[in-house]
Amino acid sequence: MQRSAQLITAQWLITAHESGVQTIESGAVHVDGAGHIVAVGTATELRSALDRSGAAHTVVDLGASILMPGLINAHTHAAMSLLRGAADDMALSDWLQKRIWPMEAALVDESFVLVGTQLAAAEMLLGGTTTCADMYFYPKSAANAFLSMGMRAQLALPILDFPTRYAADPDAYLALGLEARDEFKGEALLSFALGPHAPYTVGDATFARINAYAAELGMVVHTHLQETAQEVVDAVAKNGVRPTERLQKLGTLSPDFLGAHGVHLNDADIALLAQNNASIVHCPSSNLKLASGIAPVSAMLKAGINVALGTDGAASNNRLDLFEEMRLMALLAKVKANNATAVTAAQAFAAATLGGARALGLSDTTGSIAPGKAADLVAVATSRVGMTPLYDPVSHLVYAATRDDVTDVWVGGDRRVTNRVLAANADRALNDSMPAVNAFATRVRALQHVDA
Amino acid sequence: MQRSAQLITAQWLITAHESGVQTIESGAVHVDGAGHIVAVGTATELRSALDRSGAAHTVVDLGASILMPGLINAHTHAAMSLLRGAADDMALSDWLQKRIWPMEAALVDESFVLVGTQLAAAEMLLGGTTTCADMYFYPKSAANAFLSMGMRAQLALPILDFPTRYAADPDAYLALGLEARDEFKGEALLSFALGPHAPYTVGDATFARINAYAAELGMVVHTHLQETAQEVVDAVAKNGVRPTERLQKLGTLSPDFLGAHGVHLNDADIALLAQNNASIVHCPSSNLKLASGIAPVSAMLKAGINVALGTDGAASNNRLDLFEEMRLMALLAKVKANNATAVTAAQAFAAATLGGARALGLSDTTGSIAPGKAADLVAVATSRVGMTPLYDPVSHLVYAATRDDVTDVWVGGDRRVTNRVLAANADRALNDSMPAVNAFATRVRALQHVDA
Repeated sequence: MQRSAQLITAQWLITAHESGVQTIESGAVHVDGAGHIVAVGTATELRSALDRSGAAHTVVDLGASILMPGLINAHTHAAMSLLRGAADDMALSDWLQKRIWPMEAALVDESFVLVGTQLAAAEMLLGGTTTCADMYFYPKSAANAFLSMGMRAQLALPILDFPTRYAADPDAYLALGLEARDEFKGEALLSFALGPHAPYTVGDATFARINAYAAELGMVVHTHLQETAQEVVDAVAKNGVRPTERLQKLGTLSPDFLGAHGVHLNDADIALLAQNNASIVHCPSSNLKLASGIAPVSAMLKAGINVALGTDGAASNNRLDLFEEMRLMALLAKVKANNATAVTAAQAFAAATLGGARALGLSDTTGSIAPGKAADLVAVATSRVGMTPLYDPVSHLVYAATRDDVTDVWVGGDRRVTNRVLAANADRALNDSMPAVNAFATRVRALQHVDA
Repeated sequence: MQRSAQLITAQWLITAHESGVQTIESGAVHVDGAGHIVAVGTATELRSALDRSGAAHTVVDLGASILMPGLINAHTHAAMSLLRGAADDMALSDWLQKRIWPMEAALVDESFVLVGTQLAAAEMLLGGTTTCADMYFYPKSAANAFLSMGMRAQLALPILDFPTRYAADPDAYLALGLEARDEFKGEALLSFALGPHAPYTVGDATFARINAYAAELGMVVHTHLQETAQEVVDAVAKNGVRPTERLQKLGTLSPDFLGAHGVHLNDADIALLAQNNASIVHCPSSNLKLASGIAPVSAMLKAGINVALGTDGAASNNRLDLFEEMRLMALLAKVKANNATAVTAAQAFAAATLGGARALGLSDTTGSIAPGKAADLVAVATSRVGMTPLYDPVSHLVYAATRDDVTDVWVGGDRRVTNRVLAANADRALNDSMPAVNAFATRVRALQHVDA
């Protein structure tokens, strides 16, 4: 779709680069009609360049706002928004076995994934998240949901060694997933990863097949990794090595490997991941809520691992809110390392933007405000009492702002949120799905107090 | 001030009692013209009782909202809102010695406290906090600020053994403080506590005098307690006993004792505090940001200690946001205790409301929705995408809601926030103080990069 070019200006433009976080006062972005960033600089520079060129363009002046790259939620199970708050304050085993798995077995189908993912996408977009890495069943339904909301997503095709309602065996998971990938091949907003659920649910033979597909098709491998202490103990008992070492031996670790959680990584695990230029997605809220622990993020960064941020699903968070995860990353790293300088606001901001793009293999497309990338942009108001005074906009983004300070959001140059309101077509899609959301909620309530 | 009686109705009314958290569906509160709660029940019950009585009243129907007691921020330094984000990601000693103390020495006067406290009060009210326990210099200015915003506050009169710009010695601190208390004696929204800064800055002789005043005047004693590991080590080296034991020996511990932080409490400290029915104010964000640690909240609750919640000052948080602190209390307790059931959403909600009121000795006045108490009430909208679906409103208040879901706030029956907008007189006071806020911010910027 061709639109008019846009010149977007704001009091602060903030973006991460490989070399650090850059702030431009009275900054501007020139976005072309195809939704790509043409130029970044001061408003004065870009205005005069556009005036000289005489090119038609619309001007969006965001005033005393911060313009930043769209946030990237690098690990979520979007459709689980329908289970938000359905099971809290429970031990992980009870939570999974008595609540989440039985609810999923009873409820999860194409419709659940479609409307649950639309709900999640609306929440994420309104909160400044423009891209997510989703891992769930029925990825075709998820793909349709993200397209209906105009959100960028990377769908990790689910693969397990055991049957679910969605598929019977690894062959079926792979076939269904690759079929979804083929169907949506031309969509600029969508990409696909291979999503072996976890080392403890996927055997060596299946990992070998996944590695082959990943190499052949150039796909990211996205899996849960060492989320709990128990799964590491169990893995050592079963395989003789820790999960990270097993994946290394299987040849799964690479720059295209993305491990979610990484709470219980020891120095050897961190060294292996760093040596392979792999990425870890830190999910602090979920790791606290399920009492999994606090990931050694400071040690990972020191070792050179690319760290991204994720919310996990709404059943274990219960927000899909990257502002909250940025804040927690910076705060928790300080107690974990017993050092208030451990992870700075700028490092948390970089993880939530460029770190996410690198983890998803999308750093040519998104994750920073740079010429050639898609215009995935977010405006954050600084006018509220809780943002006053303002000494350092990066500090405020991480420690003081909430997602409710987000006013405007662009995905690939399309304005998806204007003054805190979803674009009309997305809002319509969400409204159309609300009867189904409410019907699923009624069924969840009926299952909440069943003893499984 | 006499107003008309009010009947306030909402889809859920949630309040804490000694016996636990109670939810009334289609709930209602009847507030009399003096701002006191007359009755609590279902909307149907209260509506027919009022109809029978024929008493004039206005009706406020909050629709699909949660009506809850105003949150209580039981430890803050309100005026430090002017230093929000002025010094982040620094070790505690550098943070204090190179930034906070020099800035305070240069800037803190009556005007700083007046406008900084107004800013903080506005932030707190808009975020659903109706009462705070403030500890800072120039309490007369703080008192005027809270009155101008219509917020309930308990001012801890600052007492130190060393001189500051505010006072020269313990005699002067006490005299200035008690003078402020006398001046505002008739104000229903204000109460006063004695605020010895900390065991490491206040000697035995001063504590003895404070104990005498506390007993004679029936005042709460509010102090920092065992916030860092180092201060405990230093105290044992200096006094031979840990700070809590020292305060026990001095006779300072009592049901009117409120210790802020309590991060480094061991079992003996917890037993002493429990035995004295003392309160601890948990300040999770600040404890993370300064790398102080995670307080053993679950152990405190098990021992029967009354736990309240606080934000600490905006220089170490950087939000005055009880929703954030509730969420962190429930989440952090789970990793601290390695148990996902450690502190439930209901326990965090109780700490932020009734726990705070008990800590401040104000549980006859506020902290729950109960007949005879002041109508300190907050409405939380449940309509946003991030609050959908809703299975358990208490879970949503703690895990899913943000302060931006707060729409309406009453303090002592006065509506201080209506549909997310401050009352006109408070808004005017805040606007009038903005030139001074900006002038202080300019001076802070000049001090930010000075090497002290």
